[in-house]
Amino acid sequence: MSRISTEAPITTLINVFTVRPERQRALIDLLGRATEEAMRHLPGFVSANIHASTDGTKVTNYAQWRSAEDFHAMLGDPAAREHMELAAELAERYEPHLYTVESVHQR
Amino acid sequence: MSRISTEAPITTLINVFTVRPERQRALIDLLGRATEEAMRHLPGFVSANIHASTDGTKVTNYAQWRSAEDFHAMLGDPAAREHMELAAELAERYEPHLYTVESVHQR
Repeated sequence: MSRISTEAPITTLINVFTVRPERQRALIDLLGRATEEAMRHLPGFVSANIHASTDGTKVTNYAQWRSAEDFHAMLGDPAAREHMELAAELAERYEPHLYTVESVHQR
Repeated sequence: MSRISTEAPITTLINVFTVRPERQRALIDLLGRATEEAMRHLPGFVSANIHASTDGTKVTNYAQWRSAEDFHAMLGDPAAREHMELAAELAERYEPHLYTVESVHQR
């Protein structure tokens, strides 16, 4: 279980992949493997949460890193890079952005 | 604090707004007010989590609803609709998708 909070001093990556529906499952599996084999072991990794859109056209990774510096260091890691290139090939496009959590509202 | 889990039987809405940087703060405030005044009181609302991209160009709402039916019923609520129209006016575009959580990975 991952937690979203305005109090944790973390950096959030929301990466929206646009994908052909017939490739959605393969992309989900690849991102899961990339996380387990590479990202998860890198300094500052907090969590990755892989989501499948119900219309089949998107896969979104909601990921948390200790800091933007840790996230940027990951981009230079050879194993992480190799997985990201495979994901980029499966997707039509991807739009990663770093975020801060501004507000959390509960029922 | 909100929770992301593969075990909770909920529907996740990830809505990415593209915004001019000078309007990012106004959009964040509007979405927060919309949630507190309208969405939060509707049947099936679980959480809304408003994120600001550090480059100023995006605002992303990571929201959780009990079911897709509850989310779709919200779209027909007059107060919710009024707030969504104001948000649409502030943003250049917005791309809402409903998702399932496929996997959660921790350090």
